Amino acid sequence: MPPVSHPSYIALEGAEGCGKSTQAAALASELDAVLTRETGGTKIGLRIREILHDVASSGLSPTSEALLTAADRAQHIAEVVVPALAAGRHVVSDRSVYSALAYQGYGRLLDIDEVRRINDWAIGSRWPDLVVLIEVDAAELALRMEGRELDRFEQEDGAFHDRVLDGFRLMAAAEPERWVVINGNGTVDDVHEAVRETVRQHLGL
Amino acid sequence: MPPVSHPSYIALEGAEGCGKSTQAAALASELDAVLTRETGGTKIGLRIREILHDVASSGLSPTSEALLTAADRAQHIAEVVVPALAAGRHVVSDRSVYSALAYQGYGRLLDIDEVRRINDWAIGSRWPDLVVLIEVDAAELALRMEGRELDRFEQEDGAFHDRVLDGFRLMAAAEPERWVVINGNGTVDDVHEAVRETVRQHLGL
Repeated sequence: MPPVSHPSYIALEGAEGCGKSTQAAALASELDAVLTRETGGTKIGLRIREILHDVASSGLSPTSEALLTAADRAQHIAEVVVPALAAGRHVVSDRSVYSALAYQGYGRLLDIDEVRRINDWAIGSRWPDLVVLIEVDAAELALRMEGRELDRFEQEDGAFHDRVLDGFRLMAAAEPERWVVINGNGTVDDVHEAVRETVRQHLGL
Repeated sequence: MPPVSHPSYIALEGAEGCGKSTQAAALASELDAVLTRETGGTKIGLRIREILHDVASSGLSPTSEALLTAADRAQHIAEVVVPALAAGRHVVSDRSVYSALAYQGYGRLLDIDEVRRINDWAIGSRWPDLVVLIEVDAAELALRMEGRELDRFEQEDGAFHDRVLDGFRLMAAAEPERWVVINGNGTVDDVHEAVRETVRQHLGL
């Protein structure tokens, strides 16, 4: 496909079960974008992700967890995001560096400024241009997660997940020019329509 | 064994093939210390170490490498070093956070202040009390490495390893109260004797 003149780096964020992955795939297809994800968007990142999500890593310290996720992001930006943008492709990512701030900063109660600083260094200051936060009601999320085998993050308690979601909302409110919040309670098609509209508006398409 | 009143955290540093691991084991035995190592001193650290040393990780970005080593260190300090010291045990470690500064800072030419800052956060500012740098002549090191199957770090060129060693020397010179440099060209017993003497002097034994 032909390169675009102003390629954008678009991240989808939200809770487990909010529909990010499905929506990211649909959006990437719509935009002829490179579809990728964090963590695990590279071979090295997949190995890091395995450590992070493995329930056997229950003794992983919050600091070590934060550095592992930052290592994944450093590799992903260098190997996937920056080359794709340089080649004139839009990038759509299922999660981004903002998940590091939400999960390791707000969720794990680490110093948010330190987590932000380390991640800024990790990604060479290449933050997403647009972040789409998909919000789904707690009852609906619980329904969607029923029967799933839960990984190390998903096994965390409700207070952890509440802090993560509050973190996303705080970041969205603090940077309204970069973030949009989408109601994710509808059907896949409804939500896709909403995501597509907001992204097209942002990209001026 | 009984707890000691002032447990020390002692790190052995130097080039591959300098005899660190052998000397660390001998010293730990001598002091009834907890023997450990970085990277790979914990189960999680072993998984991180596999990624770092694997020749298949040739595309690992320097920034990601630095964050992975810092993640190993964070886990090691939290899981091994701090609990051992708290229980009144000396700790002898085959490498430490200073290897991160030498390899990822000086070796990879990353911003040394940033690497130091991130590692200081990783280890909760718990730096080794004493660092024993074992220096071996380049010709002798080359002899010792002959026939070894080389991992990703060992496969790096001479300029990289020169920068690493220069880094160790600079750090030793900058903090003479924390570092001692030992001539590692002699027999294992000779070097052990020298390490033991300098450590006993430092610990006031």
